[in-house]
Amino acid sequence: MNIPDLASLSDGVLAGDRRAMARAISLVENRRPGARDLLAVLYPHSGRAQVIGVTGAAGSGKSSLVNELVLELRRRGHTVGVVAVDPTSPFSGGAILGDRIRMRDLAGDPGIFIRSMATRGALGGLTAATVDAVVILDAAGLDRVIIETVGVGQDEVDIARTAHTTIVLQVPGLGDDVQALKAGILEIADVFAVNKADLDGAEQLVAQLQIMLDLNSVHTGVNGWRAPILQTVATAGTGIPALADALTAHWDYLQHGGHGQAQARAHAERLLAETLAREAATRLRQAARDRGQWEPLVDQVTARELDPYTAAGQVLAEWYGRG
Amino acid sequence: MNIPDLASLSDGVLAGDRRAMARAISLVENRRPGARDLLAVLYPHSGRAQVIGVTGAAGSGKSSLVNELVLELRRRGHTVGVVAVDPTSPFSGGAILGDRIRMRDLAGDPGIFIRSMATRGALGGLTAATVDAVVILDAAGLDRVIIETVGVGQDEVDIARTAHTTIVLQVPGLGDDVQALKAGILEIADVFAVNKADLDGAEQLVAQLQIMLDLNSVHTGVNGWRAPILQTVATAGTGIPALADALTAHWDYLQHGGHGQAQARAHAERLLAETLAREAATRLRQAARDRGQWEPLVDQVTARELDPYTAAGQVLAEWYGRG
Repeated sequence: MNIPDLASLSDGVLAGDRRAMARAISLVENRRPGARDLLAVLYPHSGRAQVIGVTGAAGSGKSSLVNELVLELRRRGHTVGVVAVDPTSPFSGGAILGDRIRMRDLAGDPGIFIRSMATRGALGGLTAATVDAVVILDAAGLDRVIIETVGVGQDEVDIARTAHTTIVLQVPGLGDDVQALKAGILEIADVFAVNKADLDGAEQLVAQLQIMLDLNSVHTGVNGWRAPILQTVATAGTGIPALADALTAHWDYLQHGGHGQAQARAHAERLLAETLAREAATRLRQAARDRGQWEPLVDQVTARELDPYTAAGQVLAEWYGRG
Repeated sequence: MNIPDLASLSDGVLAGDRRAMARAISLVENRRPGARDLLAVLYPHSGRAQVIGVTGAAGSGKSSLVNELVLELRRRGHTVGVVAVDPTSPFSGGAILGDRIRMRDLAGDPGIFIRSMATRGALGGLTAATVDAVVILDAAGLDRVIIETVGVGQDEVDIARTAHTTIVLQVPGLGDDVQALKAGILEIADVFAVNKADLDGAEQLVAQLQIMLDLNSVHTGVNGWRAPILQTVATAGTGIPALADALTAHWDYLQHGGHGQAQARAHAERLLAETLAREAATRLRQAARDRGQWEPLVDQVTARELDPYTAAGQVLAEWYGRG
């Protein structure tokens, strides 16, 4: 992309132009030339939005909850972006008919911008593209950006780590979810939403979560934040205002008392480290290709004559030696 | 780890000693000193096992299916390793009582080695550790290694890409799964298992999958492999021999006609690229720290005075300049 195009695109994003925003996200998603320059221009204008991660298993009613939450945040005067990285989300095209109809209501509102991300690609690519998309929406002036993910895999944990506030959905009667919860999701939850709270077992699930929080000292420090456990019935809109209140409370908590600054620094360091890893890998591989070193190394690793660690060491040694 | 320890550990693994195998996997999982040297020794001895990925949603009966598949492969004279990267798997500690009891049968057999991997950690760390664990089990002489993952996130796709043959479980009546399927899982499935095939809707699901395969030209090339769609009732052992047959058929397909060689090269190239990225990132970050460049850069990115791309470029430029 040439400089005038880049300038007009970044100007468009900063002015909140929807077509420019969509084009900018496509650019970073596909790692097109110019993506890096665009982000370099936009990044200093970002950092104002509250980034909210929402994760939960398929079938937890996450789509309905995000939908209602967006409407509630709009009622409170916020502008809202949604980045859906969930292949089952209606925002990603995996909608059942009812979701699609509901979604259309959101799409007509100029204070809402919805974008789905591809869930396939290179290692680490999804997280990077999601982070970049959030920077774009943030720089465009949206003051709440929701990242919607499914499940409790490494991706979701990585993506949650880039949010300011993470909502974890739980549903009564899904034993597997509780298992996944035990496996470590306590670390990433700032707010629990027990959705479908009109089902049997909701009170039991809430009690179980309370006990877990009690046992987990990370969440019970004197000056710490203890994740509230809210009951919602998203399809009926029940509990959504309380959920929005909890988001505000966590945002206030981050702004006051230095927690937000520490979190911002941790986010920045991770972002820098990941960007560095990607850039270094791309350049090193290209350099090894250019000097004819790459293909023979791949052949040797394929034939198991050489292990990948030794082979990688050879590429690095060559680069060091270049001066 | 010193050289004699390393030699005795690698000798133990190559001799199929279970304690050595367990210790070796812990070493790579925790990225302990010596892990790289150990893998360098073991890697040339790997490459013989058929690596089989099994993925499916929580509640798809995956645990039972893997359990029955292991028993069937044993009956056919194979030795079998299982690497569970599913937080809901009984092999990872997330078992319900029935699973635990079933699992104990497997654990008593010296021809079976089961290991669960932590599902939290650094970006890309889980996939890397899983790949390393497979190398260890392969080098130890197990001739079938099953990697069990849950869901259809990026992790599962990445891990599936490291397997020779990937089984994707589907269950009748789970709408979300079919959605996820549409979103791209066709690309990774070499074999479909419609589990709980005694439930209503099984025939319909099979028909739906057939249509998808018909529409997906990748799977219908003249010399290509078309993923068979098998019906199983894992809890009753139904359909498991046919599933084992399909694994053998796919392995034969890979061995003959060059597909296996192309796949092996693609695996090796990805492994080399990922190893290189990790090693380069670690060294670059350490070098930037050592010369006092890292912390000020993180501060500037935190303050949004500098974007992460420009900051990463500065680290790389410094490294280039070192000579």
